[in-house]
Amino acid sequence: MSNDAAATDVLVVGGGMAGLAGALALKENGADVTLVEVAPAFREVGAGLQMAPNASRVLKRWGLLEKALEIGVQPKHLVFRDAVTGEELTRQTLGGEFEERYGAPYVVIHRSDLHRILLEACQDAGVTLVNDVQVQKVETDGDRAKAYSAKGEVFEADAILAADGLKSTLRGQVANDGPVNSAYVAYRGTVPITPETPAADLEDVIVYLGPNCHLVQYPLRKGELLNTVAVFKSASFERGEEQYGGVDELEAAYAGCVPAVQEALKNLATGIRWPMYDRDPIENWVAGRMALIGDAAHPMLQYLAQGACQALEDAAVLQDATQGLVFTDEGVNPGAWEAAFSEFNGVRAARTARVQRTARIWGESWHVDGVARVLRNMLFKSRGDNNFQYNDWLYGRSEPGVPAEVPAVSAGSARGSLVEA
Amino acid sequence: MSNDAAATDVLVVGGGMAGLAGALALKENGADVTLVEVAPAFREVGAGLQMAPNASRVLKRWGLLEKALEIGVQPKHLVFRDAVTGEELTRQTLGGEFEERYGAPYVVIHRSDLHRILLEACQDAGVTLVNDVQVQKVETDGDRAKAYSAKGEVFEADAILAADGLKSTLRGQVANDGPVNSAYVAYRGTVPITPETPAADLEDVIVYLGPNCHLVQYPLRKGELLNTVAVFKSASFERGEEQYGGVDELEAAYAGCVPAVQEALKNLATGIRWPMYDRDPIENWVAGRMALIGDAAHPMLQYLAQGACQALEDAAVLQDATQGLVFTDEGVNPGAWEAAFSEFNGVRAARTARVQRTARIWGESWHVDGVARVLRNMLFKSRGDNNFQYNDWLYGRSEPGVPAEVPAVSAGSARGSLVEA
Repeated sequence: MSNDAAATDVLVVGGGMAGLAGALALKENGADVTLVEVAPAFREVGAGLQMAPNASRVLKRWGLLEKALEIGVQPKHLVFRDAVTGEELTRQTLGGEFEERYGAPYVVIHRSDLHRILLEACQDAGVTLVNDVQVQKVETDGDRAKAYSAKGEVFEADAILAADGLKSTLRGQVANDGPVNSAYVAYRGTVPITPETPAADLEDVIVYLGPNCHLVQYPLRKGELLNTVAVFKSASFERGEEQYGGVDELEAAYAGCVPAVQEALKNLATGIRWPMYDRDPIENWVAGRMALIGDAAHPMLQYLAQGACQALEDAAVLQDATQGLVFTDEGVNPGAWEAAFSEFNGVRAARTARVQRTARIWGESWHVDGVARVLRNMLFKSRGDNNFQYNDWLYGRSEPGVPAEVPAVSAGSARGSLVEA
Repeated sequence: MSNDAAATDVLVVGGGMAGLAGALALKENGADVTLVEVAPAFREVGAGLQMAPNASRVLKRWGLLEKALEIGVQPKHLVFRDAVTGEELTRQTLGGEFEERYGAPYVVIHRSDLHRILLEACQDAGVTLVNDVQVQKVETDGDRAKAYSAKGEVFEADAILAADGLKSTLRGQVANDGPVNSAYVAYRGTVPITPETPAADLEDVIVYLGPNCHLVQYPLRKGELLNTVAVFKSASFERGEEQYGGVDELEAAYAGCVPAVQEALKNLATGIRWPMYDRDPIENWVAGRMALIGDAAHPMLQYLAQGACQALEDAAVLQDATQGLVFTDEGVNPGAWEAAFSEFNGVRAARTARVQRTARIWGESWHVDGVARVLRNMLFKSRGDNNFQYNDWLYGRSEPGVPAEVPAVSAGSARGSLVEA
């Protein structure tokens, strides 16, 4: 236990996607950045992750897109099918017009690969990375923010980024809320693609929509792995049982689905069950010298596949909001942190609230039965490929709250060199 | 009480739309037709009725369309609105391309006016019309069908048309089923259009769709009357009360709707409440020398406004199915009735079953809330005017089960002269 405070410009609490992206963004602006993570090592649990163009544009801006493309896959189509009949409901071609319109490719990538790319970029940029630090308390209202760890460490910084995820401790500084349980549980799995793997659809993201369940499949690692996610409404949760959503419910949840879906359940790793939570949107993410970022600010259900994407958007907007205000030609101006956080919060909150709310409704529309399923299928089938009316708000390049494609650069910016031409 | 059997070629049981249309159709073929009706006078209860082109084509075939147009209204559009927001969801222009495609106009007409037109046509054609006859029992398996009334009258005929409606007694000959309660109740009303009537929409059929309720408005009698129908899910029915759907539930049922809808409730006649029933489709409508027609064969919910329309289609198909088989150049051939009824049944049952089933789902889609309402509204809004993909199966001129636009005429047909050129 030490009473010596470690001093830095920016302390980032949490080493997930949001924390790494935020640390990288501010380091790029020239800040001294220390990132602390509770886990003993930096790693990412989970399977595949979909990076829509709004996220791959941010990687491109940071010069990291090529690395993602080296290890990831650019799927040819996003295809929705009815899980009960197998019928195709709609498809979007992801190259061509789509990529051109949104200015970057749609990429699927293993979560651990994206995490590693961001981690290495932080290391290369000189972010100080510290494991085994559990921040329990922060003081954010002085000229220097302070963070206190469970072991008694003290960190002093001009500003704190709270990137401590869905179950954020630091969110308690601005909101008195908790995670909202959606009653849905996910199982994930990645298996090698072999000559025995059914050959259909291996180049696409396929989403099977069923009553109270869905299943997503797509390739990873240059097509060597098949990623499968099964998400279903837990019957035992509905009955009020505390230990709900066990693997014993899987088969029954998909009993009404086509064989291709039932077969795909074998690809799941049943050791980890993922209960699906989000929170209601909140307007204020800022307490003095601290701002929430990523899931800590706006945890969302996974139906739009935007959790990591919105964290990347956050970081890029924060990079621009601090550039010129906090990070100036004359050096760091700590007095401007409140204004910069307020700008960041103002630009981002309405957009992420819309993503949170739309993800809920979008998910509901996947899981309907009866007449709602009939309507859903008719609606989806009425949509033609390259009809972008439902996509533009989310993937569009100049929608409100979306970061610029090229960072704001001042003459004093330390590392503008990383930016792609 | 008499033992003298009244003898005729065809006995029609029931003097509603189906019975009158069936009697007219067979009389046109040259049959002696007697129609018996339980009520002491021929009349039609109710308010407005929508005749889609598939029905007005049948009137045209019989030379009766001009009469309907003299008293009815050709609305300019069919418009769907969300009852909660008032937002327009979709519209179909009913003249022009629509009328051309389907070969006849869309006409709204008072039920009593259409009933009178058919009644007068039967009288002009020489159908024997008898009131105050309650048929309780039929014998249909001999060479001569027999019907026995509550008062002891006996009617003998080559064939019987059972047109005794939703609560058909004679359907018991072929099916052991009963009406299905939809939990919805309707109130109807017609009020004079005055200078004080809100001027909007008076030339259109307007349907407001709300959660568990809807409201329909259109003009009648050359625009002198405004017809209003309000249909809502009865809360007291849901609670299991026997006397459900009282007028006291009206206000609460529409509490969430826009003022235009709430105001329109004042136009309803609250003296009669109409519980909405249908039945499940059945395949066989024929017992020996008897066939069901109209609601007795295929009672349906009102959402597609096809009850009377399908009865008219029935009659026209029956006219063609008997022409040349029963009604030949050499006179009436009673031995062919079974074959003719089988042909009629075969042509019609799949089509009316589809209308019955679609009416249920269509009605469900009107009354949804939550995510299903979001999907419904998106689907409706994605549809352009003159997009006929959802209409062709019902209104199309050459769909399976639809009567020919010109009747089959043999040389011996007695009254081909009534047919329009």
